[in-house]
Amino acid sequence: MEHMNWNTQQTNRRARQARAAEALGAQRQGKTVLAEAIATLLHAVIEPGDRVCLEGNNQKQADFLARALTQLDPARVHDLHMVQSVLALPEHLDLFENGIASLLDFSFSGQQAGRLAKMVSAGQIRIGAIHTYLELFARYFVDLTPRIALVCAQSADAQGNLYTGPNTEDTPAIVEATAFRGGIVIAQVNELVDAVPRVDIPGDWVDYVVLAPKPNFIEPLFTRDPAQISEIQVLMGMMAIKGIYGEYGVQRLNHGIGFDTAAIELLLPTYGDSLGLKGKIGSHWALNPHPALIPAIEAGWVKSVHSFGSELGMEDYIRARSDVFFTGPDGSMRSNRAFCQAAGHYACDMFIGSTLQIDLNGHSSTATLGRISGFGGAPNMGADARGRRHASPAWLKAGAQAREGRGGVSAMPRGQKLVVQIVETFREHMQPAFVEKLDAWQLAEQAGMAIPPVMIYGDDVTHILTEEGIANLLLCRSDEEREQAIRGVAGYTPIGLGRDKRMVENLRDRGVIRRAEDLGIDQRDATRNLLAARSMRDLVRASGGLYQPPKRFRNW
Amino acid sequence: MEHMNWNTQQTNRRARQARAAEALGAQRQGKTVLAEAIATLLHAVIEPGDRVCLEGNNQKQADFLARALTQLDPARVHDLHMVQSVLALPEHLDLFENGIASLLDFSFSGQQAGRLAKMVSAGQIRIGAIHTYLELFARYFVDLTPRIALVCAQSADAQGNLYTGPNTEDTPAIVEATAFRGGIVIAQVNELVDAVPRVDIPGDWVDYVVLAPKPNFIEPLFTRDPAQISEIQVLMGMMAIKGIYGEYGVQRLNHGIGFDTAAIELLLPTYGDSLGLKGKIGSHWALNPHPALIPAIEAGWVKSVHSFGSELGMEDYIRARSDVFFTGPDGSMRSNRAFCQAAGHYACDMFIGSTLQIDLNGHSSTATLGRISGFGGAPNMGADARGRRHASPAWLKAGAQAREGRGGVSAMPRGQKLVVQIVETFREHMQPAFVEKLDAWQLAEQAGMAIPPVMIYGDDVTHILTEEGIANLLLCRSDEEREQAIRGVAGYTPIGLGRDKRMVENLRDRGVIRRAEDLGIDQRDATRNLLAARSMRDLVRASGGLYQPPKRFRNW
Repeated sequence: MEHMNWNTQQTNRRARQARAAEALGAQRQGKTVLAEAIATLLHAVIEPGDRVCLEGNNQKQADFLARALTQLDPARVHDLHMVQSVLALPEHLDLFENGIASLLDFSFSGQQAGRLAKMVSAGQIRIGAIHTYLELFARYFVDLTPRIALVCAQSADAQGNLYTGPNTEDTPAIVEATAFRGGIVIAQVNELVDAVPRVDIPGDWVDYVVLAPKPNFIEPLFTRDPAQISEIQVLMGMMAIKGIYGEYGVQRLNHGIGFDTAAIELLLPTYGDSLGLKGKIGSHWALNPHPALIPAIEAGWVKSVHSFGSELGMEDYIRARSDVFFTGPDGSMRSNRAFCQAAGHYACDMFIGSTLQIDLNGHSSTATLGRISGFGGAPNMGADARGRRHASPAWLKAGAQAREGRGGVSAMPRGQKLVVQIVETFREHMQPAFVEKLDAWQLAEQAGMAIPPVMIYGDDVTHILTEEGIANLLLCRSDEEREQAIRGVAGYTPIGLGRDKRMVENLRDRGVIRRAEDLGIDQRDATRNLLAARSMRDLVRASGGLYQPPKRFRNW
Repeated sequence: MEHMNWNTQQTNRRARQARAAEALGAQRQGKTVLAEAIATLLHAVIEPGDRVCLEGNNQKQADFLARALTQLDPARVHDLHMVQSVLALPEHLDLFENGIASLLDFSFSGQQAGRLAKMVSAGQIRIGAIHTYLELFARYFVDLTPRIALVCAQSADAQGNLYTGPNTEDTPAIVEATAFRGGIVIAQVNELVDAVPRVDIPGDWVDYVVLAPKPNFIEPLFTRDPAQISEIQVLMGMMAIKGIYGEYGVQRLNHGIGFDTAAIELLLPTYGDSLGLKGKIGSHWALNPHPALIPAIEAGWVKSVHSFGSELGMEDYIRARSDVFFTGPDGSMRSNRAFCQAAGHYACDMFIGSTLQIDLNGHSSTATLGRISGFGGAPNMGADARGRRHASPAWLKAGAQAREGRGGVSAMPRGQKLVVQIVETFREHMQPAFVEKLDAWQLAEQAGMAIPPVMIYGDDVTHILTEEGIANLLLCRSDEEREQAIRGVAGYTPIGLGRDKRMVENLRDRGVIRRAEDLGIDQRDATRNLLAARSMRDLVRASGGLYQPPKRFRNW
C-alpha cells in the first residue's frame, strides 16, 4: 500500500487562506474583505482548473462576484469548471469568453440560451451536462463538489453568519457541499450588521464576506399580470379545474410558471368555488409565492405554501400570512430550493406546466434550435416519483387508471403522479405546439449531447390539455391510442389535422379525450370575468394593500 | 370575504412559550431547561392532537426525549400524530400503548416491526403511511409539518446553537421544517458548552435545550464483521464486480446494508484490482462510512463518500481521511440524510441491495407477515430517477439495453439507473427468496393498506444476482422472458425448479442470464482469501489503527 496524504484538500485550503491573508493585508478584517479588494481575494484563493459554484439562481444573483470573476487575469485564473443552477447574467457567459472558465454544468439558462448555443458551437464552452436543480445539488455531494462557492445573502455579521432574507433559494445546498469538503465560501452581502435578523447560514461555514457596492439583482420571475390572461386560457383553466383537479381531488401540487397556470390560480376562488371544490383541491403547494395565488389564499383555499425562492413585492403579504408560508422569527420567508424540489418530487400529487413542443409519443421539450435553455425544476417535478410509497386518493386513482386491465409487471397496484402539460395548440407566431419530431433531436446532434434534451418524457405525462380538450394518456393502451389521443387535442395543427377521426371519436366515447362540452363546460362562460383578479391592481386590492408589485408591473 | 387571523400559528407558539416560561420558572435559564423539568416543559408546550416529530434516526436517537414523552399524563397530552424516520426504541411504541399518541407516519421500524404489526392489528396505532426517508422529509414541508420537534445533538451553547458531531443525519430537515412554520424545537444534548465546535443548527432555530442525563443512543448499524462473510457471498461479489460494476463502468453508487455488499467492498482492492478495474469503478459513493470500505479507501479506490449518517468507531479514521469524507472545521463528519438521499437518487448510477422476497415479475419486498418494517432509503435509491437529465456511460448503457429494438414511446433514447437485487436463493431457515406471491399482498390486507408494500418494483429492477448467476432484466422483452430470467437464477427453490429449461438456455445464449462460468469466473477461486479483510482485526489493521470498533465487534 502506497503512502498517501489524505488531507490534501484541507492543506490546500489553508494555503489558499494564507495567500489571501498575505495579499489582502489590512483590506481584510476577520472574515470581512473590502469590495475594492475582491480581485485580490479571488486571485489569491482560486487556482486554475478549480470547480467553482457561482450562485446564479432562478431569482437572486451573486452579481457582484460574477462581475469580479470576469475581470480576473486569465493568465492566473483559467479553465474553471463552473457549476451553477442558472445562467442568468451576461457575466455568466463572459467568463467563458474571457478565458476564465471552460467547462459548465448547469440547470437552466433562460435569457442566455441563444448566446450559450452560439458559444457552444464556437467551441468556447464545453457543457458537462444539463440537470434538473435537485440533481445538480445531488452531484455537489458526489462528483461535482465545488472547491469555491461564490454566494449571495442579504446581510452578514462579523462572524460571517448570513441572513438571506426570503430568497434563501440554493444557498444552503451550495455552502454545505463546499464548506464540508475543504472548499472556500465567499459571500457578497447587501449589508454588514451587528446581528443578523436570523441565521440562514452559520458563520463557521463561511470564509469571506464582501459588502457589495449595490444590492444583488433579483428577478421577479413568477409575477404574471392578470390583464394578459386570455379567454382561451380561462377556458383551459376551467377544463383543468373540473376535468383534472376536481376529477382526481388534487390537494398537493406544483404549478409551472406562466399565464396558463396563473389563470387556474385565479379561477380557484370563483369557478372552483362554484363547483363546490373548496377544501377538496389545492390546499398544499410547493410553489414560489405567486401573486396570482393571493385571491385563493384570501378566500381560505390554501393551507400551506413552501417555496423554492421568493417573489419581489410579496414580502409584506407573506409576513402577514405566516399561517400559509414558511417564515422565520424575523417574519420573512425561509425558502429552500432543495427541500422544495424534494417536496415537488415526493410530496405532490400533481405537476402542471407548459412546454414549447410535444411529439406524437407525448415527449415534450422547451429545447428549440439555436437555444440551449435547460429545464430547471420541471424534470424533477414532472416525473413519476417511482420511489414514493405513501398513498393519496389522487395518486391511487391515476395509478389505477394506468394499470387497469394490464398484466405482468404492470399488474402490481401502484399509484402515479399526475403530470399535466397545458398548451395552446399554436404558440406565438403561429408555431404549432405539436410536432412530428422534437427540435431536441437536432439540437442534440448540434451540441454533441448523448441523448435528445427532453423535458418530460411521454411515459411520465398523464394529461395533455389544450383549448380543444383533455387527452388522458393514462387510459391509452397502445402507442397508437396515445398518438390518436394527442392528435385529438392538437386542433388545427398539422398533427391535429392528421387524426384518424373515427379513432378519435372512439377515444372520446371512452373518456380518453374530453372536450369542454363533455365536461359540462359552456365555452361562452369562459370569460375574463371569471378571474378573481383581472389586473395587477386587483391583486394588490385582494392582498389588502400588502402586495407591492415591482414598478414595471404598476400600470395604473 | 371573511375576516381571518392569518398568524394563528405564531400566536399559538407564543402562548405555548409563555406557558413554558411560567411553568418552568427558575428551571429554565434562557434556552436551557433542567433535565428534571422535562415533563413540565413538554406538558406546557405540547397540545393534544399535535403533530410531533421525534428524532428517531437510523442511528442516533433522541432517547431521553422519547422516554420523557412516554411518561407524560395522557389526560393532558394525547392523540399525538407522530412523524419520524425510524421506530427504533421500545419507547417509540410505548407512546401509543400509553395513550399519548394515536397516529403514525414513518419510514422504517427495524426491530420494532413485529410489535408494530401487533399494535396495528389491535387498533392501538393508526398508520398514516410508510415512506422512503426523503419522501417523509418532503412531506414535512407540505402536509406533515411538525408542530413540535424533539431532536438530538452532541452539544449546545447558551444561544441554542447545536453541534451534532458526525451524526447530523435528519436533524437539519426536521428543524428547518418545524422552526420556519411556527413550531417549537426542543433538543436533548450530551454536553452544554461555551462554544460549539461548529454550528450544525443555528441557535435561533432552536427553542429549548436539555442536557440529557446520559449520552444519546447510537446504533452501529453498518458494521459487518468480515469473519461472517461466506464463500457464496464471495462468489456473488465476484459476479457483481465483473458482470455488473465492470460491465457498466459504475463509478457512482450506493450499497445497501448487509454482508453481500460488504463482501463486494472487500473484494474491490483484491479481485477488482486483478481485473484492472481500479479507477474505472467505485470512485464516488453515497454511503454511510462502512468499515468494510476501509481497504478500498486505503488502496486508493475511493475519491469521495457522502454519508446519510456516521458509524460508531469510524470517527478518527474519517478525521484522518478528509479528502474522502465530508468533514467540518472540527474534523468530524457532517452527514446529512436529506442530501445523501438526493445524491443516492439523482447522482448515483447504481443501487445494489438485498431483499427478503422476489416474485416472478421481479417485485421485491422485505415486508413479511406479522412485521411492518418499512423500507428506509431503498425505494428512493432503488427507483429509476426519471427526472435525471445528466448522462454517464453506465446510465446510458443501461438505458440503451432497455430500449434496444423498442418502438413508440419507448424508442426515445434515455438512460436508466442500475438497480440490482443481490440475494441467495435460500435465506435463513431455508426460506426461498423467490416466491409466487409476495407476503406484501396479505400484509396489505391485514393492515388495511391501499396497495401492497413493495420495496422495489419489478420494472425498476435491472439485475437479480444469486449464487446461480445474474439475470439482466433490461434485456427481457416480455413478461414471459422476465419470468424465465428470474426462474433461471432462482436455483433449487420451487420457482427455480419451475423454469422452462429451453427458454432459460436461450436467455443464457443471449446473455440475459449469465452464470459464473459465462463470466469467466472459476467458482474454486471464490474463497475467503480473496477478501481484503477477513476479520474485524484486519479492518482495524487496514485503517492503521484509526478504526475503533465498538466493543461487541472486538472479538480478538
